[in-house]
Amino acid sequence: MNIQKITLIGSGRVATQLGLKLAAKHKKIVQVYSRHPEAARQLAARLGAEAIDDLSRINGDSDLYIISVVDDAVAKVAAKLSLAGKIVVHTSGSVPIQVLQNANWKSGVFYPLQTFAKDKNVDFKNIPICIEASDKETETSLTMLARELSEDVRMVNSEQRMMIHVAAVFANNFTNFMYLMSQELLEKSGLSFDILLPLIRETTDKLNHILPREAQTGPAARGDEEVIQKHLKILEEHEGKKIIYQHISEYILNYYKNKN
Amino acid sequence: MNIQKITLIGSGRVATQLGLKLAAKHKKIVQVYSRHPEAARQLAARLGAEAIDDLSRINGDSDLYIISVVDDAVAKVAAKLSLAGKIVVHTSGSVPIQVLQNANWKSGVFYPLQTFAKDKNVDFKNIPICIEASDKETETSLTMLARELSEDVRMVNSEQRMMIHVAAVFANNFTNFMYLMSQELLEKSGLSFDILLPLIRETTDKLNHILPREAQTGPAARGDEEVIQKHLKILEEHEGKKIIYQHISEYILNYYKNKN
Repeated sequence: MNIQKITLIGSGRVATQLGLKLAAKHKKIVQVYSRHPEAARQLAARLGAEAIDDLSRINGDSDLYIISVVDDAVAKVAAKLSLAGKIVVHTSGSVPIQVLQNANWKSGVFYPLQTFAKDKNVDFKNIPICIEASDKETETSLTMLARELSEDVRMVNSEQRMMIHVAAVFANNFTNFMYLMSQELLEKSGLSFDILLPLIRETTDKLNHILPREAQTGPAARGDEEVIQKHLKILEEHEGKKIIYQHISEYILNYYKNKN
Repeated sequence: MNIQKITLIGSGRVATQLGLKLAAKHKKIVQVYSRHPEAARQLAARLGAEAIDDLSRINGDSDLYIISVVDDAVAKVAAKLSLAGKIVVHTSGSVPIQVLQNANWKSGVFYPLQTFAKDKNVDFKNIPICIEASDKETETSLTMLARELSEDVRMVNSEQRMMIHVAAVFANNFTNFMYLMSQELLEKSGLSFDILLPLIRETTDKLNHILPREAQTGPAARGDEEVIQKHLKILEEHEGKKIIYQHISEYILNYYKNKN
Protein backbone atom coordinates (compact mmCIF):
# COMPACT_ATOMS: atom_id res chain seq x y z
CA MET A 1 0.00 0.00 0.00
CA ASN A 2 1.19 3.47 -0.84
CA ILE A 3 0.74 5.30 2.45
CA GLN A 4 -0.66 8.80 1.95
CA LYS A 5 -2.69 9.65 5.08
CA ILE A 6 -1.11 9.52 8.50
CA THR A 7 -2.23 10.14 12.08
CA LEU A 8 0.30 11.06 14.74
CA ILE A 9 -0.28 9.82 18.27
CA GLY A 10 2.11 11.84 20.38
CA SER A 11 3.64 15.30 20.01
CA GLY A 12 7.12 14.89 21.41
CA ARG A 13 10.47 15.31 19.69
CA VAL A 14 10.23 12.26 17.40
CA ALA A 15 6.56 12.92 16.50
CA THR A 16 7.38 16.56 15.74
CA GLN A 17 10.38 15.93 13.49
CA LEU A 18 8.78 12.94 11.79
CA GLY A 19 5.53 14.84 11.24
CA LEU A 20 7.32 17.84 9.74
CA LYS A 21 9.29 15.63 7.38
CA LEU A 22 6.24 13.59 6.33
CA ALA A 23 4.28 16.78 5.66
CA ALA A 24 7.20 18.12 3.63
CA LYS A 25 6.98 14.95 1.56
CA HIS A 26 3.31 15.78 0.83
CA LYS A 27 1.80 13.22 3.15
CA LYS A 28 -1.56 14.26 4.59
CA ILE A 29 -1.36 14.43 8.39
CA VAL A 30 -4.98 13.82 9.37
CA GLN A 31 -4.92 14.15 13.15
CA VAL A 32 -2.40 14.86 15.89
CA TYR A 33 -3.17 13.44 19.32
CA SER A 34 -1.62 14.54 22.57
CA ARG A 35 -3.03 14.26 26.08
CA HIS A 36 -1.84 17.87 26.46
CA PRO A 37 -4.36 19.91 24.40
CA GLU A 38 -1.93 22.79 23.84
CA ALA A 39 0.83 20.47 22.58
CA ALA A 40 -1.62 18.79 20.20
CA ARG A 41 -2.82 22.16 18.93
CA GLN A 42 0.66 23.52 18.35
CA LEU A 43 1.94 20.56 16.38
CA ALA A 44 -1.33 20.10 14.47
CA ALA A 45 -1.17 23.76 13.41
CA ARG A 46 2.32 23.24 11.98
CA LEU A 47 1.12 20.18 10.05
CA GLY A 48 -2.30 21.35 8.87
CA ALA A 49 -3.92 18.58 10.91
CA GLU A 50 -6.80 18.30 13.38
CA ALA A 51 -5.70 18.48 17.02
CA ILE A 52 -7.27 16.03 19.48
CA ASP A 53 -6.60 15.25 23.14
CA ASP A 54 -8.92 12.26 23.48
CA LEU A 55 -7.89 8.88 22.05
CA SER A 56 -11.53 7.97 21.40
CA ARG A 57 -11.68 10.78 18.83
CA ILE A 58 -9.07 9.19 16.59
CA ASN A 59 -10.82 8.53 13.32
CA GLY A 60 -10.31 5.83 10.69
CA ASP A 61 -9.36 8.18 7.82
CA SER A 62 -5.63 7.42 7.80
CA ASP A 63 -3.60 4.60 6.29
CA LEU A 64 -0.98 4.69 9.03
CA TYR A 65 -1.08 5.48 12.77
CA ILE A 66 2.23 6.38 14.34
CA ILE A 67 2.39 5.97 18.12
CA SER A 68 5.27 8.11 19.30
CA VAL A 69 4.97 8.33 23.07
CA VAL A 70 7.22 7.36 25.99
CA ASP A 71 8.12 3.67 26.01
CA ASP A 72 5.89 2.47 28.81
CA ALA A 73 2.83 4.27 27.39
CA VAL A 74 2.96 2.52 24.00
CA ALA A 75 1.03 -0.56 25.14
CA LYS A 76 -1.52 1.46 27.12
CA VAL A 77 -2.24 3.75 24.18
CA ALA A 78 -2.47 0.84 21.73
CA ALA A 79 -4.98 -0.91 23.99
CA LYS A 80 -7.38 1.99 23.60
CA LEU A 81 -7.31 2.08 19.80
CA SER A 82 -9.69 0.35 17.46
CA LEU A 83 -8.39 0.69 13.93
CA ALA A 84 -9.47 -2.35 11.94
CA GLY A 85 -7.54 -2.88 8.72
CA LYS A 86 -5.06 -0.08 9.40
CA ILE A 87 -1.30 -0.08 9.99
CA VAL A 88 -0.27 0.84 13.55
CA VAL A 89 3.43 1.42 14.32
CA HIS A 90 5.52 2.77 17.15
CA THR A 91 8.84 4.63 16.91
CA SER A 92 10.67 3.25 19.92
CA GLY A 93 14.06 1.54 20.07
CA SER A 94 13.39 -0.59 23.09
CA VAL A 95 9.74 -1.65 22.72
CA PRO A 96 9.17 -4.99 20.94
CA ILE A 97 6.71 -5.19 18.06
CA GLN A 98 4.58 -7.70 20.03
CA VAL A 99 3.25 -4.86 22.15
CA LEU A 100 1.21 -3.70 19.15
CA GLN A 101 -0.02 -7.16 18.14
CA ASN A 102 -3.73 -7.07 17.30
CA ALA A 103 -5.84 -9.38 15.17
CA ASN A 104 -7.69 -6.46 13.59
CA TRP A 105 -4.80 -4.39 12.31
CA LYS A 106 -1.29 -4.68 10.88
CA SER A 107 1.52 -3.68 13.18
CA GLY A 108 5.03 -2.43 12.71
CA VAL A 109 7.94 -0.38 13.98
CA PHE A 110 9.32 2.75 12.36
CA TYR A 111 12.43 3.65 14.36
CA PRO A 112 14.56 6.57 13.18
CA LEU A 113 17.96 6.21 14.85
CA GLN A 114 18.78 9.77 15.76
CA THR A 115 18.58 12.18 18.67
CA PHE A 116 15.89 14.78 18.03
CA ALA A 117 15.03 18.20 19.37
CA LYS A 118 11.62 19.82 18.93
CA ASP A 119 13.04 23.05 17.60
CA LYS A 120 15.99 21.83 15.57
CA ASN A 121 15.12 20.36 12.21
CA VAL A 122 17.32 17.48 11.18
CA ASP A 123 18.29 16.25 7.76
CA PHE A 124 16.47 12.90 7.50
CA LYS A 125 18.33 11.86 4.37
CA ASN A 126 21.12 10.07 6.25
CA ILE A 127 19.19 8.93 9.31
CA PRO A 128 18.92 5.13 9.48
CA ILE A 129 15.26 4.13 9.69
CA CYS A 130 14.77 0.67 11.20
CA ILE A 131 11.68 -1.15 9.98
CA GLU A 132 9.90 -4.18 11.39
CA ALA A 133 6.44 -5.39 10.42
CA SER A 134 3.86 -8.03 11.27
CA ASP A 135 3.69 -9.21 7.65
CA LYS A 136 5.45 -8.85 4.32
CA GLU A 137 2.92 -6.48 2.79
CA THR A 138 3.15 -4.06 5.73
CA GLU A 139 6.93 -4.30 5.60
CA THR A 140 6.82 -3.22 1.96
CA SER A 141 4.47 -0.32 2.71
CA LEU A 142 6.61 0.95 5.60
CA THR A 143 9.83 0.50 3.64
CA MET A 144 8.45 2.52 0.73
CA LEU A 145 7.45 5.30 3.10
CA ALA A 146 10.82 5.23 4.89
CA ARG A 147 12.67 5.45 1.56
CA GLU A 148 10.85 8.69 0.83
CA LEU A 149 12.49 10.15 3.95
CA SER A 150 15.91 8.51 4.07
CA GLU A 151 18.47 6.74 1.92
CA ASP A 152 19.29 4.40 4.81
CA VAL A 153 16.39 2.02 5.49
CA ARG A 154 17.12 -1.25 7.27
CA MET A 155 15.10 -4.31 8.30
CA VAL A 156 15.73 -4.83 11.99
CA ASN A 157 13.97 -7.24 14.34
CA SER A 158 12.94 -6.34 17.89
CA GLU A 159 15.96 -7.94 19.55
CA GLN A 160 18.40 -6.24 17.19
CA ARG A 161 16.59 -2.93 17.66
CA MET A 162 16.93 -3.21 21.42
CA MET A 163 20.66 -3.84 20.97
CA ILE A 164 20.91 -0.80 18.69
CA HIS A 165 19.25 1.20 21.43
CA VAL A 166 21.76 -0.05 24.01
CA ALA A 167 24.63 0.68 21.60
CA ALA A 168 23.20 4.18 21.09
CA VAL A 169 23.26 4.74 24.86
CA PHE A 170 26.99 3.97 24.80
CA ALA A 171 27.64 6.06 21.68
CA ASN A 172 25.48 9.06 22.63
CA ASN A 173 24.58 9.29 26.34
CA PHE A 174 27.76 7.80 27.75
CA THR A 175 30.06 9.76 25.44
CA ASN A 176 28.22 12.97 26.28
CA PHE A 177 28.74 12.19 29.96
CA MET A 178 32.48 11.89 29.26
CA TYR A 179 32.30 15.33 27.62
CA LEU A 180 30.47 16.58 30.69
CA MET A 181 33.25 15.29 32.95
CA SER A 182 35.86 17.07 30.83
CA GLN A 183 33.77 20.25 30.80
CA GLU A 184 33.75 20.32 34.60
CA LEU A 185 37.45 19.53 34.95
CA LEU A 186 38.34 22.32 32.54
CA GLU A 187 36.02 24.83 34.19
CA LYS A 188 37.53 24.05 37.61
CA SER A 189 40.93 24.93 36.11
CA GLY A 190 39.73 28.19 34.61
CA LEU A 191 39.57 26.80 31.08
CA SER A 192 36.64 26.56 28.72
CA PHE A 193 35.26 23.42 27.11
CA ASP A 194 35.61 24.74 23.56
CA ILE A 195 39.34 24.00 23.67
CA LEU A 196 38.38 20.34 23.15
CA LEU A 197 36.09 20.81 20.15
CA PRO A 198 38.70 20.28 17.39
CA LEU A 199 39.89 17.11 19.16
CA ILE A 200 36.32 15.83 19.50
CA ARG A 201 35.65 16.58 15.85
CA GLU A 202 38.77 14.69 14.74
CA THR A 203 37.97 11.74 17.04
CA THR A 204 34.56 11.24 15.45
CA ASP A 205 35.59 12.15 11.89
CA LYS A 206 38.06 9.27 12.08
CA LEU A 207 35.14 6.86 12.43
CA ASN A 208 34.12 7.57 8.84
CA HIS A 209 37.30 5.74 7.79
CA ILE A 210 38.27 3.32 10.55
CA LEU A 211 36.37 1.38 13.19
CA PRO A 212 36.61 2.28 16.91
CA ARG A 213 38.66 -0.87 17.53
CA GLU A 214 41.49 0.46 15.35
CA ALA A 215 41.04 4.07 16.49
CA GLN A 216 41.61 3.46 20.20
CA THR A 217 44.60 5.40 21.59
CA GLY A 218 45.59 6.83 24.97
CA PRO A 219 47.49 5.84 28.12
CA ALA A 220 45.21 2.94 29.06
CA ALA A 221 45.19 1.39 25.58
CA ARG A 222 49.00 1.44 25.43
CA GLY A 223 49.30 0.35 29.08
CA ASP A 224 51.10 3.56 30.12
CA GLU A 225 50.79 3.26 33.92
CA GLU A 226 53.02 6.28 34.49
CA VAL A 227 50.67 8.71 32.76
CA ILE A 228 47.62 7.06 34.34
CA GLN A 229 49.15 7.58 37.80
CA LYS A 230 49.94 11.23 37.00
CA HIS A 231 46.36 11.76 35.89
CA LEU A 232 44.94 10.08 39.00
CA LYS A 233 47.13 12.33 41.13
CA ILE A 234 45.84 15.51 39.53
CA LEU A 235 42.30 14.13 40.01
CA GLU A 236 42.83 13.76 43.79
CA GLU A 237 40.61 16.76 44.44
CA HIS A 238 37.93 15.55 42.03
CA GLU A 239 36.90 12.33 43.75
CA GLY A 240 33.95 11.41 41.49
CA LYS A 241 35.93 11.95 38.31
CA LYS A 242 38.89 10.10 39.73
CA ILE A 243 36.80 6.98 40.29
CA ILE A 244 35.39 7.18 36.77
CA TYR A 245 38.86 7.70 35.29
CA GLN A 246 40.16 4.74 37.26
CA HIS A 247 37.31 2.40 36.32
CA ILE A 248 37.28 3.19 32.61
CA SER A 249 41.07 2.96 32.44
CA GLU A 250 40.78 -0.48 34.05
CA TYR A 251 38.13 -1.57 31.51
CA ILE A 252 40.43 -0.48 28.69
CA LEU A 253 43.52 -2.12 30.22
CA ASN A 254 41.57 -5.36 30.72
CA TYR A 255 40.13 -5.20 27.23
CA TYR A 256 43.59 -5.05 25.68
CA LYS A 257 45.02 -7.65 28.09
CA ASN A 258 42.30 -10.12 27.11
CA LYS A 259 42.87 -9.43 23.41
CA ASN A 260 46.58 -10.28 23.55
CA MET B 1 62.64 36.90 18.42
CA ASN B 2 61.22 35.90 15.07
CA ILE B 3 61.84 32.16 14.96
CA GLN B 4 63.02 31.04 11.52
CA LYS B 5 65.26 28.02 12.03
CA ILE B 6 64.02 24.96 13.87
CA THR B 7 65.43 21.59 14.91
CA LEU B 8 63.11 18.66 15.53
CA ILE B 9 64.07 16.19 18.21
CA GLY B 10 61.77 13.24 17.62
CA SER B 11 60.04 11.84 14.53
CA GLY B 12 56.71 10.61 15.86
CA ARG B 13 53.21 11.75 14.98
CA VAL B 14 53.41 15.20 16.58
CA ALA B 15 56.93 15.90 15.27
CA THR B 16 55.87 14.81 11.78
CA GLN B 17 52.72 16.91 11.55
CA LEU B 18 54.30 19.91 13.26
CA GLY B 19 57.39 19.70 11.05
CA LEU B 20 55.32 19.49 7.86
CA LYS B 21 53.26 22.49 8.89
CA LEU B 22 56.30 24.57 9.92
CA ALA B 23 58.03 23.76 6.63
CA ALA B 24 54.88 24.75 4.76
CA LYS B 25 55.08 28.08 6.57
CA HIS B 26 58.63 28.55 5.15
CA LYS B 27 60.47 27.78 8.37
CA LYS B 28 63.87 26.21 7.84
CA ILE B 29 64.00 22.79 9.48
CA VAL B 30 67.72 22.43 10.15
CA GLN B 31 67.99 18.92 11.62
CA VAL B 32 65.69 16.02 12.49
CA TYR B 33 66.85 13.71 15.25
CA SER B 34 65.53 10.23 15.93
CA ARG B 35 67.29 7.35 17.67
CA HIS B 36 65.95 5.26 14.77
CA PRO B 37 68.16 6.26 11.80
CA GLU B 38 65.57 5.26 9.21
CA ALA B 39 62.81 7.32 10.90
CA ALA B 40 65.12 10.35 11.08
CA ARG B 41 66.05 9.93 7.42
CA GLN B 42 62.45 9.61 6.26
CA LEU B 43 61.13 12.68 8.06
CA ALA B 44 64.25 14.76 7.30
CA ALA B 45 63.80 13.97 3.61
CA ARG B 46 60.22 15.27 3.70
CA LEU B 47 61.41 18.47 5.38
CA GLY B 48 64.65 19.16 3.51
CA ALA B 49 66.58 18.76 6.76
CA GLU B 50 69.67 16.86 7.90
CA ALA B 51 68.92 13.51 9.53
CA ILE B 52 70.82 12.59 12.68
CA ASP B 53 70.54 9.68 15.13
CA ASP B 54 73.01 10.90 17.73
CA LEU B 55 72.03 13.70 20.11
CA SER B 56 75.65 14.90 20.31
CA ARG B 57 75.42 15.87 16.62
CA ILE B 58 72.70 18.43 17.20
CA ASN B 59 74.17 21.74 16.12
CA GLY B 60 73.54 25.30 17.33
CA ASP B 61 72.25 26.65 14.02
CA SER B 62 68.56 26.82 15.01
CA ASP B 63 66.55 29.38 16.97
CA LEU B 64 64.19 26.76 18.38
CA TYR B 65 64.60 23.11 19.41
CA ILE B 66 61.38 21.11 19.65
CA ILE B 67 61.59 17.98 21.78
CA SER B 68 58.72 15.76 20.68
CA VAL B 69 59.36 12.36 22.22
CA VAL B 70 57.45 10.09 24.61
CA ASP B 71 56.72 11.77 27.95
CA ASP B 72 59.27 9.98 30.10
CA ALA B 73 62.08 10.56 27.59
CA VAL B 74 61.74 14.38 27.58
CA ALA B 75 63.92 14.92 30.66
CA LYS B 76 66.51 12.37 29.57
CA VAL B 77 66.85 13.92 26.13
CA ALA B 78 67.02 17.46 27.53
CA ALA B 79 69.80 16.45 29.92
CA LYS B 80 72.02 15.54 26.96
CA LEU B 81 71.58 18.84 25.12
CA SER B 82 73.84 21.85 25.37
CA LEU B 83 72.20 24.73 23.53
CA ALA B 84 73.27 27.96 25.19
CA GLY B 85 71.07 30.95 24.35
CA LYS B 86 68.52 28.89 22.41
CA ILE B 87 64.84 28.17 23.01
CA VAL B 88 64.07 24.56 23.95
CA VAL B 89 60.45 23.39 24.12
CA HIS B 90 58.54 20.14 24.42
CA THR B 91 55.13 19.30 22.96
CA SER B 92 53.64 17.19 25.73
CA GLY B 93 50.38 17.67 27.60
CA SER B 94 51.44 16.03 30.83
CA VAL B 95 55.08 17.06 31.27
CA PRO B 96 55.65 20.24 33.34
CA ILE B 97 57.86 23.00 31.96
CA GLN B 98 60.28 22.57 34.90
CA VAL B 99 61.64 19.44 33.26
CA LEU B 100 63.35 21.66 30.67
CA GLN B 101 64.66 24.24 33.14
CA ASN B 102 68.26 25.15 32.35
CA ALA B 103 70.29 28.24 33.21
CA ASN B 104 71.85 28.34 29.74
CA TRP B 105 68.74 28.34 27.58
CA LYS B 106 65.13 29.55 27.48
CA SER B 107 62.50 26.88 27.91
CA GLY B 108 58.88 26.52 26.89
CA VAL B 109 56.02 24.28 25.93
CA PHE B 110 54.34 24.16 22.54
CA TYR B 111 51.39 21.80 22.95
CA PRO B 112 49.00 21.35 20.02
CA LEU B 113 45.78 19.86 21.40
CA GLN B 114 44.87 17.34 18.76
CA THR B 115 45.19 13.65 17.96
CA PHE B 116 47.69 13.16 15.13
CA ALA B 117 48.50 10.42 12.67
CA LYS B 118 51.77 10.23 10.73
CA ASP B 119 50.09 9.79 7.39
CA LYS B 120 47.02 11.99 7.79
CA ASN B 121 47.66 15.70 7.45
CA VAL B 122 45.52 17.83 9.71
CA ASP B 123 44.32 21.37 9.30
CA PHE B 124 46.26 23.26 11.96
CA LYS B 125 44.19 26.40 11.58
CA ASN B 126 41.68 25.43 14.29
CA ILE B 127 43.93 23.39 16.55
CA PRO B 128 44.41 25.04 19.96
CA ILE B 129 48.12 25.56 20.60
CA CYS B 130 48.90 25.86 24.32
CA ILE B 131 51.97 27.96 25.09
CA GLU B 132 54.03 28.22 28.25
CA ALA B 133 57.45 29.85 28.56
CA SER B 134 60.22 30.48 31.08
CA ASP B 135 60.12 34.25 30.42
CA LYS B 136 58.05 36.90 28.71
CA GLU B 137 60.31 37.27 25.67
CA THR B 138 60.22 33.55 24.93
CA GLU B 139 56.46 33.56 25.41
CA THR B 140 56.18 36.26 22.75
CA SER B 141 58.44 34.37 20.33
CA LEU B 142 56.51 31.11 20.77
CA THR B 143 53.16 32.88 20.52
CA MET B 144 54.16 34.57 17.27
CA LEU B 145 55.23 31.23 15.83
CA ALA B 146 52.05 29.50 17.02
CA ARG B 147 49.89 32.21 15.44
CA GLU B 148 51.46 31.45 12.08
CA LEU B 149 50.05 27.92 12.40
CA SER B 150 46.74 28.39 14.19
CA GLU B 151 44.09 30.96 14.98
CA ASP B 152 43.65 29.48 18.46
CA VAL B 153 46.72 30.16 20.62
CA ARG B 154 46.32 30.09 24.42
CA MET B 155 48.59 30.74 27.39
CA VAL B 156 48.32 27.67 29.61
CA ASN B 157 50.41 26.84 32.67
CA SER B 158 51.70 23.34 33.45
CA GLU B 159 48.94 22.46 35.88
CA GLN B 160 46.21 23.60 33.49
CA ARG B 161 47.87 21.74 30.63
CA MET B 162 47.89 18.54 32.67
CA MET B 163 44.18 19.02 33.33
CA ILE B 164 43.57 19.59 29.62
CA HIS B 165 45.36 16.33 28.97
CA VAL B 166 43.16 14.50 31.48
CA ALA B 167 40.05 16.12 29.97
CA ALA B 168 41.24 15.02 26.53
CA VAL B 169 41.48 11.44 27.79
CA PHE B 170 37.80 11.64 28.77
CA ALA B 171 36.78 13.36 25.52
CA ASN B 172 38.84 11.25 23.14
CA ASN B 173 40.05 7.92 24.57
CA PHE B 174 37.08 7.20 26.83
CA THR B 175 34.50 8.20 24.22
CA ASN B 176 36.23 6.05 21.62
CA PHE B 177 36.08 3.15 24.07
CA MET B 178 32.32 3.71 24.33
CA TYR B 179 32.16 3.55 20.51
CA LEU B 180 34.19 0.35 20.67
CA MET B 181 31.69 -1.19 23.12
CA SER B 182 28.81 -0.29 20.79
CA GLN B 183 30.71 -1.64 17.79
CA GLU B 184 31.07 -5.03 19.49
CA LEU B 185 27.45 -5.16 20.67
CA LEU B 186 26.22 -4.38 17.16
CA GLU B 187 28.53 -6.90 15.52
CA LYS B 188 27.38 -9.63 17.92
CA SER B 189 23.81 -8.89 16.75
CA GLY B 190 24.71 -9.04 13.08
CA LEU B 191 24.63 -5.26 12.65
CA SER B 192 27.33 -2.92 11.51
CA PHE B 193 28.74 0.03 13.41
CA ASP B 194 28.01 2.53 10.63
CA ILE B 195 24.34 2.58 11.67
CA LEU B 196 25.46 4.81 14.57
CA LEU B 197 27.45 7.36 12.56
CA PRO B 198 24.63 9.91 12.00
CA LEU B 199 23.78 9.78 15.72
CA ILE B 200 27.43 10.26 16.68
CA ARG B 201 27.75 13.15 14.27
CA GLU B 202 24.64 14.85 15.68
CA THR B 203 25.78 14.26 19.28
CA THR B 204 29.06 16.07 18.69
CA ASP B 205 27.68 18.73 16.32
CA LYS B 206 25.40 19.78 19.18
CA LEU B 207 28.47 20.75 21.21
CA ASN B 208 29.11 23.63 18.83
CA HIS B 209 25.95 25.26 20.24
CA ILE B 210 25.36 23.90 23.74
CA LEU B 211 27.58 22.58 26.52
CA PRO B 212 27.62 18.87 27.45
CA ARG B 213 25.81 19.69 30.70
CA GLU B 214 22.74 20.83 28.75
CA ALA B 215 23.10 18.18 26.06
CA GLN B 216 22.88 15.15 28.36
CA THR B 217 19.94 12.85 27.57
CA GLY B 218 19.17 9.15 27.96
CA PRO B 219 17.62 6.75 30.45
CA ALA B 220 20.12 7.40 33.26
CA ALA B 221 19.91 11.20 33.01
CA ARG B 222 16.10 11.09 33.25
CA GLY B 223 16.18 8.36 35.91
CA ASP B 224 14.31 5.85 33.73
CA GLU B 225 14.97 2.67 35.73
CA GLU B 226 12.64 0.63 33.53
CA VAL B 227 14.70 1.15 30.36
CA ILE B 228 17.96 0.68 32.29
CA GLN B 229 16.71 -2.70 33.57
CA LYS B 230 15.66 -3.73 30.05
CA HIS B 231 19.09 -2.82 28.75
CA LEU B 232 20.87 -4.71 31.55
CA LYS B 233 18.76 -7.75 30.74
CA ILE B 234 19.74 -7.75 27.07
CA LEU B 235 23.37 -7.33 28.20
CA GLU B 236 23.20 -10.54 30.33
CA GLU B 237 25.31 -12.40 27.78
CA HIS B 238 27.82 -9.57 27.50
CA GLU B 239 29.17 -9.53 31.05
CA GLY B 240 31.96 -6.97 30.55
CA LYS B 241 29.68 -4.51 28.77
CA LYS B 242 26.95 -5.03 31.33
CA ILE B 243 29.26 -3.96 34.16
CA ILE B 244 30.35 -0.88 32.22
CA TYR B 245 26.74 0.01 31.39
CA GLN B 246 25.77 -0.41 35.03
CA HIS B 247 28.64 1.67 36.40
CA ILE B 248 28.31 4.57 33.98
CA SER B 249 24.54 4.63 34.44
CA GLU B 250 25.15 4.86 38.20
CA TYR B 251 27.61 7.73 37.75
CA ILE B 252 25.02 9.58 35.68
CA LEU B 253 22.17 8.83 38.12
CA ASN B 254 24.32 10.02 41.04
CA TYR B 255 25.44 13.10 39.14
CA TYR B 256 21.86 14.22 38.62
CA LYS B 257 20.80 13.23 42.14
CA ASN B 258 23.53 15.39 43.62
CA LYS B 259 22.63 18.29 41.35
CA ASN B 260 19.01 18.36 42.50
